[in-house]
Amino acid sequence: MKQFMDKDFLLTTETAKTLYHDYAEKMPIIDYHCHLVPRQIFEDKKFRNLTEVWLGAGDRYGDHYKWRALRAMGFNEEWISGAADDKERFLKFVEMMPKCIGNPLYHWSHLELRRYFGIEEVICPENAEIIWEKANKKLETLSARKMMELFNVKTVCTTDDPVDSLEWHAKMKEDKTLKTKVLPAFRPDKAINVELDWFADWVNQLAKVVGYEIKSISDLTKALEERIEFFHSMGCRVSDHALDVVCYAPATVEEVNAIFEKGMRNEPISMEEQDKYKGYILVFLGRQYAKRGWVQQYHIGALRNNSKRMLKEIGPDTGFDAINDGAVAPKLSALLDALDATDELPKTILYNLNNRDNYLLAILAGCFMHEGIRGKIQFGSAWWFLDQQDGMKQQIETHCQVGLISNFVGMLTDSRSFLSYPRHEYFRRILCEKLGNLIENGEYPADLKVVGKIVEDICYNNAVEYFGF
Amino acid sequence: MKQFMDKDFLLTTETAKTLYHDYAEKMPIIDYHCHLVPRQIFEDKKFRNLTEVWLGAGDRYGDHYKWRALRAMGFNEEWISGAADDKERFLKFVEMMPKCIGNPLYHWSHLELRRYFGIEEVICPENAEIIWEKANKKLETLSARKMMELFNVKTVCTTDDPVDSLEWHAKMKEDKTLKTKVLPAFRPDKAINVELDWFADWVNQLAKVVGYEIKSISDLTKALEERIEFFHSMGCRVSDHALDVVCYAPATVEEVNAIFEKGMRNEPISMEEQDKYKGYILVFLGRQYAKRGWVQQYHIGALRNNSKRMLKEIGPDTGFDAINDGAVAPKLSALLDALDATDELPKTILYNLNNRDNYLLAILAGCFMHEGIRGKIQFGSAWWFLDQQDGMKQQIETHCQVGLISNFVGMLTDSRSFLSYPRHEYFRRILCEKLGNLIENGEYPADLKVVGKIVEDICYNNAVEYFGF
Amino acid sequence: MKQFMDKDFLLTTETAKTLYHDYAEKMPIIDYHCHLVPRQIFEDKKFRNLTEVWLGAGDRYGDHYKWRALRAMGFNEEWISGAADDKERFLKFVEMMPKCIGNPLYHWSHLELRRYFGIEEVICPENAEIIWEKANKKLETLSARKMMELFNVKTVCTTDDPVDSLEWHAKMKEDKTLKTKVLPAFRPDKAINVELDWFADWVNQLAKVVGYEIKSISDLTKALEERIEFFHSMGCRVSDHALDVVCYAPATVEEVNAIFEKGMRNEPISMEEQDKYKGYILVFLGRQYAKRGWVQQYHIGALRNNSKRMLKEIGPDTGFDAINDGAVAPKLSALLDALDATDELPKTILYNLNNRDNYLLAILAGCFMHEGIRGKIQFGSAWWFLDQQDGMKQQIETHCQVGLISNFVGMLTDSRSFLSYPRHEYFRRILCEKLGNLIENGEYPADLKVVGKIVEDICYNNAVEYFGF
Repeated sequence: MKQFMDKDFLLTTETAKTLYHDYAEKMPIIDYHCHLVPRQIFEDKKFRNLTEVWLGAGDRYGDHYKWRALRAMGFNEEWISGAADDKERFLKFVEMMPKCIGNPLYHWSHLELRRYFGIEEVICPENAEIIWEKANKKLETLSARKMMELFNVKTVCTTDDPVDSLEWHAKMKEDKTLKTKVLPAFRPDKAINVELDWFADWVNQLAKVVGYEIKSISDLTKALEERIEFFHSMGCRVSDHALDVVCYAPATVEEVNAIFEKGMRNEPISMEEQDKYKGYILVFLGRQYAKRGWVQQYHIGALRNNSKRMLKEIGPDTGFDAINDGAVAPKLSALLDALDATDELPKTILYNLNNRDNYLLAILAGCFMHEGIRGKIQFGSAWWFLDQQDGMKQQIETHCQVGLISNFVGMLTDSRSFLSYPRHEYFRRILCEKLGNLIENGEYPADLKVVGKIVEDICYNNAVEYFGF
Repeated sequence: MKQFMDKDFLLTTETAKTLYHDYAEKMPIIDYHCHLVPRQIFEDKKFRNLTEVWLGAGDRYGDHYKWRALRAMGFNEEWISGAADDKERFLKFVEMMPKCIGNPLYHWSHLELRRYFGIEEVICPENAEIIWEKANKKLETLSARKMMELFNVKTVCTTDDPVDSLEWHAKMKEDKTLKTKVLPAFRPDKAINVELDWFADWVNQLAKVVGYEIKSISDLTKALEERIEFFHSMGCRVSDHALDVVCYAPATVEEVNAIFEKGMRNEPISMEEQDKYKGYILVFLGRQYAKRGWVQQYHIGALRNNSKRMLKEIGPDTGFDAINDGAVAPKLSALLDALDATDELPKTILYNLNNRDNYLLAILAGCFMHEGIRGKIQFGSAWWFLDQQDGMKQQIETHCQVGLISNFVGMLTDSRSFLSYPRHEYFRRILCEKLGNLIENGEYPADLKVVGKIVEDICYNNAVEYFGF
Repeated sequence: MKQFMDKDFLLTTETAKTLYHDYAEKMPIIDYHCHLVPRQIFEDKKFRNLTEVWLGAGDRYGDHYKWRALRAMGFNEEWISGAADDKERFLKFVEMMPKCIGNPLYHWSHLELRRYFGIEEVICPENAEIIWEKANKKLETLSARKMMELFNVKTVCTTDDPVDSLEWHAKMKEDKTLKTKVLPAFRPDKAINVELDWFADWVNQLAKVVGYEIKSISDLTKALEERIEFFHSMGCRVSDHALDVVCYAPATVEEVNAIFEKGMRNEPISMEEQDKYKGYILVFLGRQYAKRGWVQQYHIGALRNNSKRMLKEIGPDTGFDAINDGAVAPKLSALLDALDATDELPKTILYNLNNRDNYLLAILAGCFMHEGIRGKIQFGSAWWFLDQQDGMKQQIETHCQVGLISNFVGMLTDSRSFLSYPRHEYFRRILCEKLGNLIENGEYPADLKVVGKIVEDICYNNAVEYFGF
């Protein structure tokens, strides 16, 4: 029997242990997609206690993974996202923890305590007091930046709205004491979701930022291009798109303009119109990215805000999202092909939220590779609900079987929390276990130099080459 | 090499063995969803020989799992569901058995012989005679009730039509000698499937039962409410719905009434109309269940009666069903949300027949949890075609990774056969193997008291708490 | 640690080793579906060097699996499908090989070198020269036929257009020196895909072949029946259908004729029209096959030619295909049912390209079994992108759990290359490992005679019985 989460956690063979400890463990982190708040990095945020950093500050910016587990226990919302006393909320979390057997939260939470706080205790009611005490003491000397340094985080890409002034990024650019490179990422969802209520408001916000009225689709694309150029000047090399449903249909600019105008008047937009409008914008944006050597990320398949009651009560992104199951292949293929047709498809990472589509995306990625770029289209790492052991294993297995895992740009956190870097460790262990097994099983020669290099590449080097930060 | 199906069948580690033998094995069974015939329980049915209890009586109420395997062998239907001699049918079954390598039938059949009959022989032509002899001898002293007592079955929920008089349940309520609590479950599929031929006939049957004409949707819901109240008075706390396709769309009562009237005239009902009608009824029913603290079960995704030729020849539910692959997420989410919007969503178990939707359902369930109820929305156990080793492993893995398996209400038989209780054993072994592995691999502390308690909860205690029988 | 790809490659237990070495290994091969070029077999083609036989001759008839991996490396197309020097292309391939960790190409390529060439070296840049030298030397004594004899290939079914004269097959029929039986297979996709540009051209080609004008659907079916009869006379017993999307809707012959006429005029054909036309032709063809005892193969779910740019540059079937994700169940069920209704459903093999549909197809197959034929409807072996370790394991597991793997007709190559017979070995090893594990884990009695027979049946005997070549 292996010891609980010892240094060889998730590593069962000698080869896997060597790959992890001699190659993976030491590699720096490039967290090319996350939701950290730039201001918190610049200001080097400190946390009042373990509850704030673990569960959130009693506002909606908490860890919705943890919140979902607490809700599954039937606990009151005030202990979860609510205004209950911090210590009480912590105790509820600890009460829930032993129930998380087999759940990634169990491992993440323990890794968080060990790696940031040096706390080796098992998280359970019996140890609640000592953990609370030790962690809060340690927090006196921890801060946002220190947490990043602890994990040798070289580069972080935040997620930013095109209308954002990037003021905190500007300040960070000037800050010589900041050891992690913090870059913006361009997330223009609000320009794309023409069917949503707040589309017109957002376009008007954009108009203010660029300083002229936006009355047509060509005004809009002009404004977006300016913002891309501005983001580029601030070091941005990555965009991000939440394609909950993949939309694409060929359309004339006149058709698209008419749909834009309907969106500005808040009129209902049909699915066919969404296909045309969104397809047009995505192709426009893709070409802009390609021109600048950016990487675009497509996050495909979320079904959001399932409980409208809770949406009203505590807002979006608080743990009430799920996964969708519409057809993805035909329109995604057509969208990529539209960009590829004129050789203006940028480097692209495809992430799926429904694990049934793993093979689909990994294989489709292989249809749009390109001379001169290693792994131009990437099958993205296991995302959100799939960011757990089974999900990662499936992603890695699929990547191996129908792609070249050696070219994979690897892990990211996709997180709002400074505590989530152990997820890189989690991924690296699973990766080393898998590649180690290939050697142990006689499926690959026992040449650790070669495989060790592949491990290092996936952990770090591939991302450096691919993103070109 | 492990011995064939010895006491540690499916258990490969010491921890798994301890979890099974010290915790799981002894727990009673709550079979909260099955298709046993109430009259057979009340009358304490005896069986003329092994063929009747294993394969059915030569009528359509046999074991369609076994029938499908026999058909795959190319055997004549008369040996399967037909009128051939019982001994001959038995011999054909035994001839097929060794071909079932890797199939759950192989394990179920052996467990059935061992646990009910004390027969340890391998099922193969060489042992046919001795098995036939021993089993038939044993059957002289076995009966429906004895079979249930043998497995410590505390509670069983049958599956009953709203028009059912529940006369056998009434008799069982009075029968002090009955050691298993037998409760009805409310299955109003015929009120929902407005598009089917027999809709009007069924509504007229319901009208006779309630004693007044049913001429409108409000008459229908009134009648259904009365039947729910009647079922409740008979101890019913569970409903069951075969949502082969998940239908939902918002609708006015006038729209729904018009569709109801079309259904009563046997006119074609479009998919859009089905969405409106079925959504309305399901919301109505869900609210009724919520008011009474019932649990509703949604069985999603069957594609039935694929061979119309065989449907004509031997009727439905005889082994010609399969799984469907339509989109589930958007309408299921909308249906649950419609109930949740007014806080009238009852406890709900979501079962999927297409394993590709495991993650989808487990995650969606997590969006509708509720204060005060542990695991209010459940990701149901592996169902029907998925009720086998791979299916259970996937269900358990998914449940662990994106839910709290500790809250799971566990296994059921979904069967017409008194011989199917070993499926609980099968599930418990697979569960203990999985949780045992988490400890053995260092993924959970080796605290057997904690994990043993989780095992006992999943086997029995959670169901007690959840259903409140 | 196991040695790299030694004689027990992929076999981890003693039972698995025995099953493979004592039962599987010696069985002949029936390659009932492949894309070998009949002329190359008749002429006993020789290869100028390893590059030609491994990567293709610099024309589009190369190994698109290998090409996709080379493209993922970002290599220039001239080194892949292009006109670069053979040695250079070989070196690029060798450079890529170590990156294929976990990919089936890694194993296939090594098996190819070992089994055909006796080359045991690991494929990597350090060994490039020696491999190039040894392989090319060996090629002096190898040829198409010798490669088939080396693997004891008893029967091969090529893939042939209905308009094909089968001249090379005719010559092979007369050739007493040919040790492998080479039969045609009937692939009438072009008669079915009424929506495609070249439909009318093809019909006119067919008209020339049969010697009369084809002006109506009944002319077309008459001509197809004649070609089926001709193929039958040439030994054909198998048809093959690329059902990228499964189409079916009931239709009158008048409706179908009108759609046929639109197709002949190259007018756009709606999806509804495709359902009617294709359903009609597939039912017609199925009945013809049934009458003659043929086996029909449905290959379901490819999404082809995703990069139109590359389609234009180097043509179809060159590595730019992917998998589709439309609904399969309802129409496939209806199509099979339409044939089954009159008891004219031929033996059928269902292959899916999207692994999420494994359970769906395996279960649907079980709904259309038939008296007198063992395993009449087959869940086909893992196909194309799924033809790898994970894909095969999933196919075998699914087949076990919801079908009878004992009846499985086993593996095929689906390949254009004479080098692909080791894929049978790959499959057999994975099969023996799985069945061996069932014994080792105590899930099946350790009766090697019984399980060895099942292995032999799946490797060879079942195909002999099923196809009746």
